[in-house]
Amino acid sequence: METVPDPMVEKADPCLHLDPATRQETIRRLKGAHGHLAGVLRMLEDPDVYCVDVLKQLSAVQGALSKVSDKVMRAHIRDHVTTAALRGDADKIVEELMEALKYSR
Amino acid sequence: METVPDPMVEKADPCLHLDPATRQETIRRLKGAHGHLAGVLRMLEDPDVYCVDVLKQLSAVQGALSKVSDKVMRAHIRDHVTTAALRGDADKIVEELMEALKYSR
Amino acid sequence: METVPDPMVEKADPCLHLDPATRQETIRRLKGAHGHLAGVLRMLEDPDVYCVDVLKQLSAVQGALSKVSDKVMRAHIRDHVTTAALRGDADKIVEELMEALKYSR
Amino acid sequence: METVPDPMVEKADPCLHLDPATRQETIRRLKGAHGHLAGVLRMLEDPDVYCVDVLKQLSAVQGALSKVSDKVMRAHIRDHVTTAALRGDADKIVEELMEALKYSR
Repeated sequence: METVPDPMVEKADPCLHLDPATRQETIRRLKGAHGHLAGVLRMLEDPDVYCVDVLKQLSAVQGALSKVSDKVMRAHIRDHVTTAALRGDADKIVEELMEALKYSR
Repeated sequence: METVPDPMVEKADPCLHLDPATRQETIRRLKGAHGHLAGVLRMLEDPDVYCVDVLKQLSAVQGALSKVSDKVMRAHIRDHVTTAALRGDADKIVEELMEALKYSR
Repeated sequence: METVPDPMVEKADPCLHLDPATRQETIRRLKGAHGHLAGVLRMLEDPDVYCVDVLKQLSAVQGALSKVSDKVMRAHIRDHVTTAALRGDADKIVEELMEALKYSR
Repeated sequence: METVPDPMVEKADPCLHLDPATRQETIRRLKGAHGHLAGVLRMLEDPDVYCVDVLKQLSAVQGALSKVSDKVMRAHIRDHVTTAALRGDADKIVEELMEALKYSR
């Protein structure tokens, strides 16, 4: 019988994943942001909605997403960037992080 | 003699609302962002999800929300800020806009 | 005798300038930022300077410049944007402001 | 027998400094931004200076400073963050970097 190739073997770095605690917190927070966005959509059904009230709610959602990004970023730096020289993939990790930082601003 | 209800008592500025076209476009775009966020939540169910992939998706959602904010901001400035001296509520409008700009950065 | 053309006549809006008080405060604050930047340059003469110390000082200078931009922005909105419908140049003013906001983020 | 002075007593991490090439490039770029800021100060001597022109110039200076920060940040991540687990100071390095990132946005 043939062995089915395990896709995990193909993956460059099967160890580099978001730690379970941060992943759970990210899910919890993103569910909150998702609900908040649904609230903004309901708010927009009112034809008399005021622009500035929409802007405030959008800012609140963006603030929540920024907080989530920060937490994922911190977990990534702690678990994968500080250990890059040990693993030997520092160049790739630096490029990737600089790219992610550029987007996150 | 009957008293006519003064709409000004009910609402400070009944005229200041998001114009219908921008409101519809905001709804359409926010529905997209809402769906995208649901996709990020599904992605996070995978215990092997990679931090940087989460960061990229969150950046994409934030970029979409920024674009929506910009459109609402532009409509607000065009329809309510440029006309503030005519209406006589410039002080309030300036305070409000500076506050909204502070948040949106 | 020919009349010499007045360059102020050529200018689209001779009245749209930064109000004197904000201009003076901007000069005062920018002189501070300019001196701060000279300090960062002196700091960089030390071959043992630590990256994070440079980043902190650069952030401080950028924070100071952001504060200046905010003050100029507020003066502009108060003096020129809220009066645009009165003057009849709202379209131009909105374009210009949206452009300036895009850069300032 | 003479005691050799321990450099570790003088400085926590004598090895953690900005690499010479990045330091020189940082100096060169900051001198440019310093000159640019002097130009904005001269521009502000004109009582007819237009707010939006000041805002544009300030944005250009801030863009230049952001580019410098990015280069210093990249050098720091490459030279000091990816090697933190090897040195054993990952906790401190992560805290410091998160703080620097918070300021730089």
